[in-house]
Amino acid sequence: MKVGIIGSGAVGSLFAAHLAGLDTVETWIYDVSQAHVDAINANGLRLTGVGEIHTFPRATTSPADLPDLDFGIVATKGMHTRPAMQATAAAFEGGAVCSVQNGIGNEEVIAEFVSAVIRGTTFPAGKLVEPGVVQWDTAGKTWIGPFEPRPAPMDVVEALASLLTSSGMETLALKDARGAQWTKLIFNAASNALCSLTRLPHGRAALDEHVRWVMDGVIEEGKAVAAALGIEMEKDPAVLLEESIEVALDHKPSMLQDVLAERSTEIDQLNGGIVGFGEANGIPTPLNRAAWALVKGLEASWKL
Amino acid sequence: MKVGIIGSGAVGSLFAAHLAGLDTVETWIYDVSQAHVDAINANGLRLTGVGEIHTFPRATTSPADLPDLDFGIVATKGMHTRPAMQATAAAFEGGAVCSVQNGIGNEEVIAEFVSAVIRGTTFPAGKLVEPGVVQWDTAGKTWIGPFEPRPAPMDVVEALASLLTSSGMETLALKDARGAQWTKLIFNAASNALCSLTRLPHGRAALDEHVRWVMDGVIEEGKAVAAALGIEMEKDPAVLLEESIEVALDHKPSMLQDVLAERSTEIDQLNGGIVGFGEANGIPTPLNRAAWALVKGLEASWKL
Repeated sequence: MKVGIIGSGAVGSLFAAHLAGLDTVETWIYDVSQAHVDAINANGLRLTGVGEIHTFPRATTSPADLPDLDFGIVATKGMHTRPAMQATAAAFEGGAVCSVQNGIGNEEVIAEFVSAVIRGTTFPAGKLVEPGVVQWDTAGKTWIGPFEPRPAPMDVVEALASLLTSSGMETLALKDARGAQWTKLIFNAASNALCSLTRLPHGRAALDEHVRWVMDGVIEEGKAVAAALGIEMEKDPAVLLEESIEVALDHKPSMLQDVLAERSTEIDQLNGGIVGFGEANGIPTPLNRAAWALVKGLEASWKL
Repeated sequence: MKVGIIGSGAVGSLFAAHLAGLDTVETWIYDVSQAHVDAINANGLRLTGVGEIHTFPRATTSPADLPDLDFGIVATKGMHTRPAMQATAAAFEGGAVCSVQNGIGNEEVIAEFVSAVIRGTTFPAGKLVEPGVVQWDTAGKTWIGPFEPRPAPMDVVEALASLLTSSGMETLALKDARGAQWTKLIFNAASNALCSLTRLPHGRAALDEHVRWVMDGVIEEGKAVAAALGIEMEKDPAVLLEESIEVALDHKPSMLQDVLAERSTEIDQLNGGIVGFGEANGIPTPLNRAAWALVKGLEASWKL
């Protein structure tokens, strides 16, 4: 069994390090960072934090090095999905490719390049601390299911879920994985975008009565779009938000970290995704559109 | 004739420097900055830029120094209106007090302290460059009229207008000055708040298709609230916005300057004011509320 991780930032590295611990799996990493790739090939990949793991996946910056792969796990930021798939699609002619990226719209791009696509949502998170070393901050489950327009067969989805679970990354195979994806999407649309605009950490933003009004509105709009799509939520994002306040009181969501470093954000895949599906289904989403627009404006300000 | 300028930042200094050039007027300044007051008393007040003016108003940080005044012109930032009026109201027992501040809600506060109130809106702008010296960036008219709940008589309003005009600050006396005030309010609600959140200068923000969508929405909501109040706009703020793009392409609105310096903003008097009047009149203002909430969140982030 051969598996390729496409994009080995924090999340991709969590998957790669776990899979490389299985004797039955040959784990490959494709990443554009030569320093990260060289470090992994020289010294292996290390996770520290929630668990200590040290394994030896093979890594490359050159797509031609990749063998034919049975599974792909795409973990790039949303704006890199297309170039990453353009580079690596040839390795997946006989395989199935699963997105574990934030937000929505990534599977649609993957499906332009491969015929068996898996929709995925993952909660584990961490941070790349140096080439070859990732701090693992959060454990959690992963949900996967066939991507409806170009689905991988259900037994293939189940095979990937059991492979990931046996590696230590608990993964559930679902016939409809949209509920998990939209639960996380809507939660992130409320947290990431509004923390980025106010520069407040997650819990502080949710405790601010002014900001909370916007968060609640973003969530209500997202739930209305999901309902119009016939999606049954895995969990109410409003409840998830309430439960997250204390544990993530001073946590800076990844998009806020991006904004503070003036890096491109995933706003198109978060609030922008809700706006797109809202428009297609006649559901108004003014607060998501405002959040999307303002973060796009912030990104534009860095180029002046 | 004795006139007191309450708050001598850029705008207050423009009025004070002009009035002090009239032989018939004794011009007083009340300001909390001892350095600015000392500089004015030692060397006079200088304007440079649109015009070169050097006059000698009297300045004080001590309200007890103020004589009985015929007119007051309040030019503090909105959040300082209340303490400024608490300090100086005794000087206006026989006089009329006019706000030339940004946004709405200031006259309501002034009316808690004095019985003859004038609603005002001014376009001239500048920047305090050092104590006693103001760079005068923009010329323009001032519109004043009786504040309806505690109005100064119309002949008093007209007397102030002709005094200001004769000093070189062209001022129009109107029976209903709300149209001018709401025109500037709505324009500022679109420009200041959204430039502050995106950190784009005025014209660049209006040319960004994403941000412009929010600006247009903020303006439409503001016009709906004004219509519900029976206010006839001086000019359509949407036209004002369009006309301002080229001339203010790289202009950083005052609120953006405040945000970059992490100073409290006038958001409560701008988008917050539109939200308040919208609520009181049953007009939904979700985009103004979001802009208000997010700037309040930004302000909160500086206190962490």
